Amino acid sequence: MNIPDAVVAGMRETNDLFCAKAVRSRDMNALDRVYTPDAHILPPGADIIHGIAGIKNFWLKAIVTLDVKDASLTTVSAESAGDTVVEIGRAELTLADGKKVPVKYVVHWKRHEEAWKWHTDIWNMNQ
Amino acid sequence: MNIPDAVVAGMRETNDLFCAKAVRSRDMNALDRVYTPDAHILPPGADIIHGIAGIKNFWLKAIVTLDVKDASLTTVSAESAGDTVVEIGRAELTLADGKKVPVKYVVHWKRHEEAWKWHTDIWNMNQ
Repeated sequence: MNIPDAVVAGMRETNDLFCAKAVRSRDMNALDRVYTPDAHILPPGADIIHGIAGIKNFWLKAIVTLDVKDASLTTVSAESAGDTVVEIGRAELTLADGKKVPVKYVVHWKRHEEAWKWHTDIWNMNQ
Repeated sequence: MNIPDAVVAGMRETNDLFCAKAVRSRDMNALDRVYTPDAHILPPGADIIHGIAGIKNFWLKAIVTLDVKDASLTTVSAESAGDTVVEIGRAELTLADGKKVPVKYVVHWKRHEEAWKWHTDIWNMNQ
């Protein structure tokens, strides 16, 4: 990784917000601090979603439907270029019955309003 | 998109190589001109694969097993930063029975040996 410590810290802060606020507290307004306003997400099983309003709808429905109780995010590799970082990572979702769902992802990070945010977010499963 | 025409042309050349050589001709050595040597792919249904040798194995097996006859790639959006481009796109695979399989993807492009190449490649399906 070629990422300055301050950027790593900013990325961790955003990831923690996603896990603590959006997933554990189901507070979708926290996603304003996680995604850029014109972010794209590319979820498996759905088409591309563009813009923060649609992204909030997607996550609320996904988290409630799957009854996700917790999430953890771990960076596998990250490369910075200009005002962006491209990260490869692994997520683990914990469902209400205790089942763990492993997920892998790529996030295109951008600096926006004093924070590092997810500008493009795509993921899939190993199985 | 904020990508210079020369970069768009270089990206198209690489995408055409993938479709014409790797998919239609099943020539996996062409992937040396498509991926950087230390690229990562994140396929649905498999774990992260790191490095061009593993990537060639993956694609040979995937293309032969699914009997993919053709592929087309279309850029949805692309943003450049430093020596990289992050692209969101759609692919369509054509199978031997004529069935079309729609795929969406994110590619992190890097400049490598006078060419634009895929450095990170992740995709999934809408269904």
